[in-house]
Formats: sequence, C-alpha cells, structure tokens
Amino acid sequence: MSSSAPELLYLLHGDPAELAETVAGMRAADIAEALRDLPPAGAAKVLAVLPFDLAVQVFDEPELDRRYEIITSMDVDAAVALVEAMSSDQQADLLRGLAQPDRDRILAKVDDDTRRTLKLLLEYPHDSAGGIMTTEVLTVPFDWSVAQTLAYIRDVAQSKETVYAIYVLDDSNHLVSVVSLRQLVIADADILVRDAGDRRKPVSVGPATDREEVARVIAKYNLLAVPVVDEQQHVLGIVTVDDVIDAIVREQTEDVQKFGGMEALGAPYMSIGLGQMVKKRAGWLCALFLSEMLTATAMQHYQHEIDKATLLAMFIPLVMSSGGNSGSQATSLIIRALALGEIKLRDWWRIAVRELPTGLMLGAILGVIGIIRILLWQRLHFYDYGPHHLLVAIAVGTALVGIVTFGSLAGSMLPFLLRRLGFDPASASAPFVATLVDVTGLVIYFSVAFVVLRGTLL
Amino acid sequence: MSSSAPELLYLLHGDPAELAETVAGMRAADIAEALRDLPPAGAAKVLAVLPFDLAVQVFDEPELDRRYEIITSMDVDAAVALVEAMSSDQQADLLRGLAQPDRDRILAKVDDDTRRTLKLLLEYPHDSAGGIMTTEVLTVPFDWSVAQTLAYIRDVAQSKETVYAIYVLDDSNHLVSVVSLRQLVIADADILVRDAGDRRKPVSVGPATDREEVARVIAKYNLLAVPVVDEQQHVLGIVTVDDVIDAIVREQTEDVQKFGGMEALGAPYMSIGLGQMVKKRAGWLCALFLSEMLTATAMQHYQHEIDKATLLAMFIPLVMSSGGNSGSQATSLIIRALALGEIKLRDWWRIAVRELPTGLMLGAILGVIGIIRILLWQRLHFYDYGPHHLLVAIAVGTALVGIVTFGSLAGSMLPFLLRRLGFDPASASAPFVATLVDVTGLVIYFSVAFVVLRGTLL
Repeated sequence: MSSSAPELLYLLHGDPAELAETVAGMRAADIAEALRDLPPAGAAKVLAVLPFDLAVQVFDEPELDRRYEIITSMDVDAAVALVEAMSSDQQADLLRGLAQPDRDRILAKVDDDTRRTLKLLLEYPHDSAGGIMTTEVLTVPFDWSVAQTLAYIRDVAQSKETVYAIYVLDDSNHLVSVVSLRQLVIADADILVRDAGDRRKPVSVGPATDREEVARVIAKYNLLAVPVVDEQQHVLGIVTVDDVIDAIVREQTEDVQKFGGMEALGAPYMSIGLGQMVKKRAGWLCALFLSEMLTATAMQHYQHEIDKATLLAMFIPLVMSSGGNSGSQATSLIIRALALGEIKLRDWWRIAVRELPTGLMLGAILGVIGIIRILLWQRLHFYDYGPHHLLVAIAVGTALVGIVTFGSLAGSMLPFLLRRLGFDPASASAPFVATLVDVTGLVIYFSVAFVVLRGTLL
Repeated sequence: MSSSAPELLYLLHGDPAELAETVAGMRAADIAEALRDLPPAGAAKVLAVLPFDLAVQVFDEPELDRRYEIITSMDVDAAVALVEAMSSDQQADLLRGLAQPDRDRILAKVDDDTRRTLKLLLEYPHDSAGGIMTTEVLTVPFDWSVAQTLAYIRDVAQSKETVYAIYVLDDSNHLVSVVSLRQLVIADADILVRDAGDRRKPVSVGPATDREEVARVIAKYNLLAVPVVDEQQHVLGIVTVDDVIDAIVREQTEDVQKFGGMEALGAPYMSIGLGQMVKKRAGWLCALFLSEMLTATAMQHYQHEIDKATLLAMFIPLVMSSGGNSGSQATSLIIRALALGEIKLRDWWRIAVRELPTGLMLGAILGVIGIIRILLWQRLHFYDYGPHHLLVAIAVGTALVGIVTFGSLAGSMLPFLLRRLGFDPASASAPFVATLVDVTGLVIYFSVAFVVLRGTLL
C-alpha cells in the first residue's frame, strides 16, 4: 500500500497524474518518510502535485526532516501558502530552522495574524512550553451551554489542532476549567459547559516551562493536551500529547549522544556532512583528551616504580577499565533516576551511603577474580610473575577494591554536582567520570602497590 | 493544594475524616506520588478511606510503584474489588508483578469474565502489544448511524478506557474502519458511522508487536490509540497513547542502564535493596572484567618492549582512553539512529565509509595535539623524554590516528553486529566497544612504537 522513495523518484520523471494518484492513497506520515530520501527539489515537486490539505499534513510531520531545504527550493508564494495553512507550533518550528534571509522572506509575505503569532512564538526558546505550543486553542465562555459548545465545535473543528479539550474562560478571559470532549458528549445538552467538566483547578504550565517538564505533566496526569497560561491565567496556547512524544524522543536522542561524550547532533546521522560531523565530535573528544593527559602526568610520578617493576604496567589497562566500568554503571543509574524525578538533588547523601557498600562489594568480587587469575596463571605456568607473585596478586586485588569503590562513588556523585552547578547531568557525565576515575585509579593502584610491595619489588 | 507523604502519614494517625477530606481534593497521580513514600500498610489504609472510584484511579497510576506490596497487605476481598474495577491492562500489569500464590488467590476470587480476560492477557509477554493493551474497546456495527453511535457512547463511556476512537466492525466482527470522536461529533447525525470516518484501512498492530514498535506507530501517525488485531482482523484490544508514553519512558530507562553496562533495574533506584543492586551490576561488571583481562595478556606480549623503554608505559592510559572515547561516540550515534529507524541494518557499509574518514580526521586532530604536548613539555623542561623525544612523539601521534580510527569504525559497526545476531544493540554496546578498543588499542600502540622506535629505543 505504501510507496518507497525510489518508486516516487521514478514516478516523478513519468506521468504527473500517475504520481498524484499513487501518493493520494498514502498517509501523510508515510509520504513524509518516503520524501526523506529524495533530493529537496524532487520532494518539492511531489508536494506540488499533492492535494493542498495533504501537502500541509505532510509538512506538519516531524518525519519530514529536510523541510528547511524543501521549503527554500519552493516558489516563495507556494511556500507562503503552505506555511499559512500549517498549525502555529509547526510554523514556528519550521521558521526557527531557516536561515535569517529565508525566514524574513517568508515572514514578509504571510498575513498579519500569522506574522504576529509567529513573532510571539519565536521569542520562546525551542525547548520551552512556549516554543512547542500551538495557539489554535478551543476556548468558550463559561456561560455557554453544552449544546452551544458542541455546535461551536462542529463549526471550528477543522481549524483547531485538537478538539478533545475545551477550555472554559471567565469574563476577563481567565482559564477557569477544562472540559473534555468525552465529558461534553455524555453531558446533558442544557447544562452550562462549566458544570460539565472537572471542578478542580486545571493542570497547566507556564510558557517558560521546560519541554521535558511539560512531557512529565502530560504523562503523569494522562492528558491529551496541557494549556500554557501566563501569570494571570490567560491561555497562550496548548501543547498536545503527540508534540510531547516528539519532544521526548528528541530529548532522548540528545541525552544518548551527550552520554556518549559529544554535542547533540540535532539532525539525523545520515543527513550531516562530514565536516559538520567532525566538528560536533572533535570538541568533546579534544576536551577529554586534554584532561586524560593528566594520566600521563600521573604516570610520570610513578616512572621510578615502573622502572623497578615493569610487571606493574601490565595491569594498568585492567584496573583502569574496571574503575571506568563501575563509574559508568553508577552514572547511568543516577542520571536516569534524576531525569525521572525518582531522586532529588537533596538526596545525594542517601545515594552516597548506598553506593559506598555497593562499590565495596563489587570491588571485592572483582578483586577476588583478579587474584585468582594471577595465581592461576602462575600455577599453570601460563606466565611467570616472579617470586613475589602472591604479593603482586594482593596488590592488584586490593587496588581493585579501592578503584571500583571510588568509581561507584564518583560516578554517582558527579551527576549531582553537574546539576548543582546548573548543567544538564547527561552532558558528558559518563566520559567525565571515566577521566576522573582513570587518573584517580592510577594513583590508587600505584599507592597500594607501593605499600604492599615495598621492600620486595619496590 | 497537593499534600506530601509526611502530611499523609501524620493524618493517618489522626482523624480519619480529616484524612479523607484532604485526599479527596487531590488528583489520582498526586495521591499515588504521595503514597510512594509511605509503608505499604499505611498506603493501604489511605486507599481504604478514599472514595472507591478515586482509589481505583490511584491504583491505575504507574507512579504507584509499590502496588504489589500494597495489594498483598490489603484484605483479600477489598483487593479483589479494586482489581475488578481496574482497566484490564492495569489488571494484567499488576498480576504480572505478584508472586504466584498472591496472584492465584486473587484470580480465584475475581468474577469469571475478568478471570478469562486476565488469563488471556497474561499469556502475552509484558513488552508486547498484547501485554500492554486493554480489552475495553468501543466497537460498533458498521450499519449503525452516527446518532445511534453517539447515544451508545453516552451509555458506555464510563466503562471504556478511551472513547476517542470508535472501531467499526462488519458482520463477521472484522475491523473495517476507525472513526474518531471528533469526526463523529462534526458528522451529520443521520449518516452511517462507517461513512463518518476515514475510508483507508485502519492502522493496527498484532498482539506480538514489540511495545517500542507500537510506540513508533502511535507517534508516527499521531494516534490517540491503536487497535491490536489478530490475523483475521478481529479486535483484541487497544493500546492508548498514555500507555505508550509510559512504555517509551520505561524503555528509555532500560536503554540508558544497558548503555551504562548493566542489567536493566526494572524498578526505581531507591526501591532496590543492596543485595539486588549488587546482583544486577556484578554480572556485567564481571563479564567486562574477564574480557578486559585480555589487555593483561596483550601487555605480556609487550613486556620486552616495556622493559627496554618504560617511557612507553606512560602513554598507555592516554591512548587507551582516546580509543574508548571515540568508540563510545560512534556507538551512541549508531544505537540511537538504529532505534529511531533512521538507518537500517543494510546501511552498515554506508556508515563504514562515513566513519572511516571521520575517524581519520578525529585521530589526526588528537595526534597533532599529542605530539605538541610531548614536544612542549620537553622544550619547557617539564619532563625529559630523553634524546629520542621526537620519535616518541611521532609514535604516540601515529598510534592515536590508528586507534581513534579503529575506535570509530568498531564503535559504529558493533551495534549492527549485535542487531544482526538478534541482540538489542543497546545491550552493553558501549562497554563492549571499550573492551574491544582497549585490547586492539594496545596492539596498535606497541606495533606503531616498534616500527618507529626500532634501532633507537627498541
């Protein structure tokens, strides 16, 4: 039933009627997906043969990730017609992604209402409630009847993004209650609309609320939309549940990329040029490289020990990576628990007193395995660790306990520290922990080795 | 307006009427959140004084994470009454979390209809469409009028989870179309319900569809609910958008934890006991430790080189971590792009030809910084790398190019390999890459050093 990009590309060079027939039977999201692999000019051609309503829907889809290029490769009048027909949140999202000259060219041509709304929306940050809301809201005066409201909905349903929540305003346009379409349909036609819904104060968010928080509110109260209100309870717009899903998915992508130690890409992997990709990755990689240089400095201090017992160098990668792994476990747990609101900033010491014994136990497990490994290799003659192999094994095992404990503690505390300092805990927490644990791990390893092996190897 | 856990705890020991009054004004999700910090028996007491409908709603909230303990500390008849009133997806989710004897005790007492539905639902895996669907679906015969359908909705709205999508069935109960409440409200009352909605084949999923895929379908087509149908297009149930948000958030948590190199916790951080926590983390940590032992084996092969030039040991942590960081960047990018469906399994070679030049460029940047660092320290007399310091710097710089390139390639290819083998790419990809890159990094480093420094240091 649905057509792929190559098929569309083929039809594009053939009979326009056949192309129009093929796409008319498809869903907007599927068309958007198929257009993704076409060159922008080709996608613009396909959009031109679509029924106008369907073209608008396709342009509303977040799947259409190259819409900036597509709209700039369109005739400006066609572009303006398309923009005017889109919902206001999608208009703002689109204009935000355009270069200033392209944006100005479109803003100059749209009608006054659209321009006014857009200028307002563009002032909010893209990741705030104001930045993702739509201004098409269904509001009714509180003294209307249910029947009046339903008749009104029949009139305006086409132009509003969602009709599932109806916002009831008082004389001074303050939000007083919310009625769902469900409540409206089952209510008596004669009662007042304000009596058909919930009597409690409506759940709402401010325009500056972070989109993650908006998502949490919608998910928590199982809403289909949440109103965005100013301090006087005037309704500025609404954020709908499908926008929130898109926001959650984008946020998740940014978090995974930051967790992997890089800037968020902000666009699909394949659509980013080589230069851009290197730029996005080189920054963090260099920052981490520079901080990892501290390991070389730490090693300089222990060169004397290494000179005397090169055997010690052999276990450096093993103990370093164990610290890194335990730190990364703790960090990912805490970042996620903070993001879900399961734990708060003030809980840091409760986490610390849990991570300390956890780290000790995990360290003890790895330490024992490490000791067994060294003694086994010695006994089975796989490798000769020399006459002091028992002491070497004890030094490695003891160092592992210390390093894994430190890794778990540092890994769990760093996200708190980052958030306390006003940063997003997801920002490169994991690689930062790795660097911190690497340097400290070397110090712990050589200090333990010095104590255990003094008078024998050292 | 909303009360906190300590306040509830206080009221619990005071006047029951005062407690009832306080909670009656709260929203279900807020009560569930406040109950989270109470002991299960205390939470059961609060639920007992709530109006029954509100208690059911509170129990339906995913925020109430200790509902297994709460229900087992309730009187069995009260528990059964509560379970019977819950929606079927929440019933199944609750029973799935109970121990077998507790589950059987409740199943034995619920009415026959509920028992039959539950036995069916419990057969589906918890992360499939069948496992998260509810069986309360609004279906109507295709020859009903819009007016008949609206009258029917008024009758049954209370007992159905969502009335926003109405599923139209033919004579043999096959799904033929979907009508939204919005379409129903704006349609003429006299036309047939099947003519009020979309003429296209409805979007649906099968009971075995993974919940992540269900989430993708709902998000892509901006649905409020998706029907779950068997092969003959009989409607088994529906998955609603709020269940999907919960599923996305849970899935995200599991992915972050797997990415951090551990088993998914499956419960909030603070609610997991120390023993359980160590168990969940020790498995992967030991697996990684055992594979990192390969680094010790690799190092044994190079002990001769280290003995001759202990200087080389100094840069081991630096080159290893650079490989790990570049690998983790590439892995997180590819895992996410695969999860979003931006790239497919067959795209692996397109990724490889992008990551190769990206890795080379990133490696060249780090290599140059590394060379400058060594020569600068030498020039400024911070440290003496000996007469062959230029060669040492060249060896480290060249090794960095190789290691970062290998890290980027290995990091981007491993998620494809894991998925090809049928595993979830998020499963410990990042730490696996680190291990692979650590071992290979050592081999690359010493091989390059051997070639560059032969005849001088080695």
